[in-house]
Amino acid sequence: MEKEVNIAVLGLGVVASGLIENLAMAKDKTRQQTGMRLSITKVMVRSKEKRRAQAEKYQLAFTTEMNEILEDPTIDIVVELIGGTSDAKRWITQALQQKKHVVTANKDLIAQFGNELTAIAKDNDVSLLYEASVAGGIPILQNLNTNFIADEITGIQGILNGTSNFMLTQMAEKEISYDEALETAQAAGFAESDPTNDVDGWDAVYKLMILVRLALGKNLSLNDIEMQGIREITQSDITYAQNFGYQIKLLAQAEKKAEKIHASVTPVLISQEHPIALVKNEMNGVFVESKFIGSSMFYGPGAGASPTAASVLTDILRIAQSKESNDPALQMCSSDLPQGELIRKGPTLNYFVLTNCKVDIKDFLVKHQVNPLMIQQGIENDEVAFITERLSETEKKSLKGQVKQVSNIKQILSIWED
Amino acid sequence: MEKEVNIAVLGLGVVASGLIENLAMAKDKTRQQTGMRLSITKVMVRSKEKRRAQAEKYQLAFTTEMNEILEDPTIDIVVELIGGTSDAKRWITQALQQKKHVVTANKDLIAQFGNELTAIAKDNDVSLLYEASVAGGIPILQNLNTNFIADEITGIQGILNGTSNFMLTQMAEKEISYDEALETAQAAGFAESDPTNDVDGWDAVYKLMILVRLALGKNLSLNDIEMQGIREITQSDITYAQNFGYQIKLLAQAEKKAEKIHASVTPVLISQEHPIALVKNEMNGVFVESKFIGSSMFYGPGAGASPTAASVLTDILRIAQSKESNDPALQMCSSDLPQGELIRKGPTLNYFVLTNCKVDIKDFLVKHQVNPLMIQQGIENDEVAFITERLSETEKKSLKGQVKQVSNIKQILSIWED
Repeated sequence: MEKEVNIAVLGLGVVASGLIENLAMAKDKTRQQTGMRLSITKVMVRSKEKRRAQAEKYQLAFTTEMNEILEDPTIDIVVELIGGTSDAKRWITQALQQKKHVVTANKDLIAQFGNELTAIAKDNDVSLLYEASVAGGIPILQNLNTNFIADEITGIQGILNGTSNFMLTQMAEKEISYDEALETAQAAGFAESDPTNDVDGWDAVYKLMILVRLALGKNLSLNDIEMQGIREITQSDITYAQNFGYQIKLLAQAEKKAEKIHASVTPVLISQEHPIALVKNEMNGVFVESKFIGSSMFYGPGAGASPTAASVLTDILRIAQSKESNDPALQMCSSDLPQGELIRKGPTLNYFVLTNCKVDIKDFLVKHQVNPLMIQQGIENDEVAFITERLSETEKKSLKGQVKQVSNIKQILSIWED
Repeated sequence: MEKEVNIAVLGLGVVASGLIENLAMAKDKTRQQTGMRLSITKVMVRSKEKRRAQAEKYQLAFTTEMNEILEDPTIDIVVELIGGTSDAKRWITQALQQKKHVVTANKDLIAQFGNELTAIAKDNDVSLLYEASVAGGIPILQNLNTNFIADEITGIQGILNGTSNFMLTQMAEKEISYDEALETAQAAGFAESDPTNDVDGWDAVYKLMILVRLALGKNLSLNDIEMQGIREITQSDITYAQNFGYQIKLLAQAEKKAEKIHASVTPVLISQEHPIALVKNEMNGVFVESKFIGSSMFYGPGAGASPTAASVLTDILRIAQSKESNDPALQMCSSDLPQGELIRKGPTLNYFVLTNCKVDIKDFLVKHQVNPLMIQQGIENDEVAFITERLSETEKKSLKGQVKQVSNIKQILSIWED
């Protein structure tokens, strides 16, 4: 017997349009596979007039009033694709209170208010799912939830921001500057006119907060995550790194040791031999380290209308199927996770670039009891780049003080090791 | 309220021991997360005496009689880890008929008799799951089943055999011969004394048959899959390929065009820039191409006691959870899929190595209207290696005939392009 599932969509941007299109294409297949008929019965937009063509093409009913959705008892699932944390939060809350399931792609909202909203969902015995909020088309949240139940995750690393990864890849492959890479990204539609959110690490930090909840079972606040963007990465950094055998990537990472967490979003050097180094351009990749499985990686498009909409659609289907079998309402994680206690970052190999160095840097490092693993004469005449052995944060700070006395420090980055 | 789930394990080899160990470690966590208490209540072995130490350590009850398991009404799930297709098939059938759920890691069995066994499972309203049968610790089957329901998969490629991949990686990294790589693999426990199953492609072919059912919805017979192993790959092939910018990998691949399938397990050249080229040593990787998501990759350990046991445990938990919510019995795919109609392989770039070449190969190729993309003077004096433009199988055969007249052909391989 066929079952009707009625969906309301809030917003009609890129992802919402992708969802409408995917759903139209997949209608027959999902009906066959699941015995369910999914229909988008209402779409909330700011202006009905502007969207008339789209409304006619897909036979959509538009509304400008949230109440029309909240008060419509035929609507089972509300899909929030408006973004932001103000209206979106209010409307999701109202929808959950009206016993409607909610699917969202809103990472800012879930990172900051996921616990609160999950608690409301639970109280109302409905589901709140948000697969598309992290790593677009990669089903990472569901994988964390289903395939690691018995396993114990000790660390998670990801290339979670497509824009910055696109820029770093372009800088490496086309040998262009940061500014040129930003222009290319903007022209390709990957970066906004104000790129702060992507290049300074905010986007990846929000996604990491969500991942840490599901993978490591802890809440982190924004301030708990060390954050550094890619604005200071130069073309010459990328060249030095490549000569040393590394790629520079904006890496989101969290590790758990004895129930304490260290989490960061920073540019790091990654060995060219590591699978995550081949996550290029707008692609995303999430690497999971666990006790039973060891290393896993999930790779796919981190953004884009169709892949993101595919994740939204998967959430919709999960809700529809669980609804049918009267399972308890699905949640992606508990609403009462403990706040994560923090630990300092462990020792790392380090990459330094100095200018105006007044000494033989090898002798200098050895004299200060730091073993230089590799040294490169600079691209610019007065530069020198080198890699140190593993240093703790304290040792690194001390070394920084010492080299400052004999040179200018142009760059310091950590090297990430598996 | 806590629920008991009682498990019987057939066999006590590497994976079974891994399962017993993982389950002991994960007991508290799974109880917390799922409210279920999983116990291994019986283990079937050939000889009780030999295993006494293990029995005591984990407090296991051994039996040598399948009937003791079949007739025990407290046993919910039978985990088959014996391997082979004779006893295993009979015992799985009997267990299903006794309304016991079955989990297996047996790829040979599922590839050849998966449909028949799934039909029996369905008739008896119990589940038959086999996540561990393909790509060890990678949850690829479940991902195909859940995250691509609405999507349409057009192609799937995988490095599915850890042994051959370990050997090819060692040949590339250590610059050793095929024979030396085989010895290394045998010493490391990755290859058996008779390596046929791994190096000739059988293992990967069985896994590909299972993947094709879930990803492309078709049954293939063994004969439908083009198969070539890695015995003829030499150290010099690997060096030529690397100089051209490629890695040689034993790639399992299937693509669907207008509902027809081409499937093969063959050594191919893969660009060093492609993520699948970084699947090294005993690791596996499965690349999925689909309409909505585009490219996805799932990467992880392809074998090993603990990762494989982790996949078995995930299947056990899925069954336990679905049992609790009275869902219909889980199956990984339909038991009545249509037999796949076949198409020929599309045109590919090709890699040739010739010895004793009596002509200028560039002139010769151009004269025969084949555009050589790259040419390398041989490592051995009388060798020459080159890459041709894309050729159909017919064109390739014709070129083969022509170069045979002026040289000896030492190697021909296809190049795989994304």
